[in-house]
Amino acid sequence: MTAKTWAYEDFVEGTSLDLGTKLVSAAEIIEFAREFDAQPMHLDEEAGKASILGGLAASGWHTCAMFMRMLCDAFLLDSTCQGAPGVDQVKWKKPVLAGDQLTGSLVVVARRLSKSKPQLGFVAMRSELFNQRGESVFELENSVMFLTREAAGSLA
Amino acid sequence: MTAKTWAYEDFVEGTSLDLGTKLVSAAEIIEFAREFDAQPMHLDEEAGKASILGGLAASGWHTCAMFMRMLCDAFLLDSTCQGAPGVDQVKWKKPVLAGDQLTGSLVVVARRLSKSKPQLGFVAMRSELFNQRGESVFELENSVMFLTREAAGSLA
Repeated sequence: MTAKTWAYEDFVEGTSLDLGTKLVSAAEIIEFAREFDAQPMHLDEEAGKASILGGLAASGWHTCAMFMRMLCDAFLLDSTCQGAPGVDQVKWKKPVLAGDQLTGSLVVVARRLSKSKPQLGFVAMRSELFNQRGESVFELENSVMFLTREAAGSLA
Repeated sequence: MTAKTWAYEDFVEGTSLDLGTKLVSAAEIIEFAREFDAQPMHLDEEAGKASILGGLAASGWHTCAMFMRMLCDAFLLDSTCQGAPGVDQVKWKKPVLAGDQLTGSLVVVARRLSKSKPQLGFVAMRSELFNQRGESVFELENSVMFLTREAAGSLA
């Protein structure tokens, strides 16, 4: 048996998981933007205020990355995760601004075992992040691959 | 008139754009993973080899971020871009491994002016990254918002 807490079998349809909280700092927003998305509204408070985002705002891809970190810390690093084939949809619904406190949750919407690799299953999840005012700022739908508990144990 | 080279009008359906190249280093893969996606196959060569990815592999979100940097450098920072409402689909088709040399391209598949804000248009793009063997490793479909040339000029 694997020592990991979460394997494919644990993701029952309807399971809801708390993704914890994340305070978004101006320094992190600027650091990510300098490396990956150097548009003015992600680098500078005044440019952000002048844009439709209304303030220094995280790159949408930064929000995706922060979501991934929340997912890792919540349960993914303690799971049999084998990665994901992609993303079905991302919605950047509202700006994520410097000083925002994000909270997150996800729900398991479906799952199925792989036809070609029965030791592996796909878990479809719908995830959401909210800001400190309870506004939904981010939604993501995708499927993540997990080993079954038995397969993980035999590989460990 | 805006000083930017690319405004909404320039993204004609069928336009194809070169996204340049990006060499993916092991250090970058590990740095991103430590901050956002600390799964073993993104942190360690041996763990990567033992995984279905077959080597030290970039987080899928890191590939998204590298794609965004290529987009920025290719034309986005010299455009009237106003961000994007989300992503319609991402496919992580093959592992992006340390030492890979990525090249990218995109094609404009559709565009339309906003109904509520006629100075703004949505440009639907299909983007793709390839590795040094010409294998498609990443696909992305989304719509990006750009100001019209006239609107951008009046705001400048």
